[in-house]
Amino acid sequence: MTPADVQLANRLADAAGTAIRPFFRNAFTLDDKADASPVTEADRAAEAAMRKIIEAEYPRDSIIGEEYGEKPGTTGRTWVLDPIDGTTSFIAGRPIFGTLIALMVEGWPVLGVIDQPVSSERWIGATGKPTMFNNAPARTRRCATLDQALLATTSPHLFGDDEAVSFLALASKVARRRLIYGGDCYNYALLASGHVDLVVEAGLKLHDFAALIPIVEGAGGIMCDWAGEPLNAASAGEVIALGDPARLEDALQALGLAAQL
Amino acid sequence: MTPADVQLANRLADAAGTAIRPFFRNAFTLDDKADASPVTEADRAAEAAMRKIIEAEYPRDSIIGEEYGEKPGTTGRTWVLDPIDGTTSFIAGRPIFGTLIALMVEGWPVLGVIDQPVSSERWIGATGKPTMFNNAPARTRRCATLDQALLATTSPHLFGDDEAVSFLALASKVARRRLIYGGDCYNYALLASGHVDLVVEAGLKLHDFAALIPIVEGAGGIMCDWAGEPLNAASAGEVIALGDPARLEDALQALGLAAQL
Repeated sequence: MTPADVQLANRLADAAGTAIRPFFRNAFTLDDKADASPVTEADRAAEAAMRKIIEAEYPRDSIIGEEYGEKPGTTGRTWVLDPIDGTTSFIAGRPIFGTLIALMVEGWPVLGVIDQPVSSERWIGATGKPTMFNNAPARTRRCATLDQALLATTSPHLFGDDEAVSFLALASKVARRRLIYGGDCYNYALLASGHVDLVVEAGLKLHDFAALIPIVEGAGGIMCDWAGEPLNAASAGEVIALGDPARLEDALQALGLAAQL
Repeated sequence: MTPADVQLANRLADAAGTAIRPFFRNAFTLDDKADASPVTEADRAAEAAMRKIIEAEYPRDSIIGEEYGEKPGTTGRTWVLDPIDGTTSFIAGRPIFGTLIALMVEGWPVLGVIDQPVSSERWIGATGKPTMFNNAPARTRRCATLDQALLATTSPHLFGDDEAVSFLALASKVARRRLIYGGDCYNYALLASGHVDLVVEAGLKLHDFAALIPIVEGAGGIMCDWAGEPLNAASAGEVIALGDPARLEDALQALGLAAQL
């Protein structure tokens, strides 16, 4: 990863935002194609805009995109793209979705971007460098005990039955007014900026979490799966993000999974 | 209600926003007082600013505020204030909370404001007039069938056990990618603007829903309780907002409560 890669990631996010903004609260009308058409149009336009740039400048890099699938490469470098993470928030007109861009080198995410194109908020993480939020350093905050944590998750319906039991066990450790739903990638961004302490989710795919890892970890936090293991392309999609790595054992114990460690 | 009341409501929202913005993503640090102090500070500052204006200009009007309680009056007019609806989103740094202001006359809400002070978005509804969003008319959208509806609710934990069963019965009628969590008053605002079709919640208090009624209904929608009855100060807090009133019977049936009508 070079400064040119960071600069490229910024241009990809710019291009995605330019493609997405015209559709926000605008192109979406409720008709028979409502579930598929306008959202897909925004998604596809944004991913196509990003792929076009990568293919022109790094034609031998691999690309994995939510909409257009995988394009093999020969460099060991893979761009992982999720043009709109938080699709339902997008179609509902809530400005808490994001464009996710990750660069993976030999399977490891070394660069990540979360871009919110309506409110012009951008988080960038790169291995070995402090995470930046709109050109200022972002830091997670400390969290002395789990019951002080602000916990976020996107939807209870993303959990399988056993996962839901584990999540509710964890949620019961947190003060009730400190549990928020909805938010998708935006919750991880707020964790990187020190406003949220803990995000716990299941059912995530590589394009959902690859970009988040450099951002959360470059801000002082930690990301792993529900067994405390590093996330990678083979992960089952159970994700924990913690602003304060010192609370990892507490979080895993609260999930009822400590015995499996 | 007069044009002067609408103008006053705007000034109240301005004052609340001025009080709230300095605390957003700023004053909140995680310490022992985290649950109570900074949020309460923003809440109290905003409500105090609004009460000061009302007491100076309409000293005989009644006021009901979430933070400072009830001040009796003699005019039959009551200002209902919720300085920050969506407290947890506020402390998490998500700009989808709102200041709620309602004017009730003889127990009926005739004027309502939802103000989002970070993104400068304001919805105003007044009986007999079209709802306005940032000075342009807001309209709900039609919804031909319930399975096309975009459904929003703030948190599954706001439902009692029986309520959760009813809500899940309704949610099962909606396409999975069309159900969003989180959002508080902001979901009703997006419904008034035609981006969300249905909001179903429980456990709401008068200050949570009074302001929403003129906004939703002035935009072409309907609000009622889970039995289809009008909401008032004695309501149990089970709230439905529908962008398309033609879907009311479907929604009540899906909640499994049609037999009670």
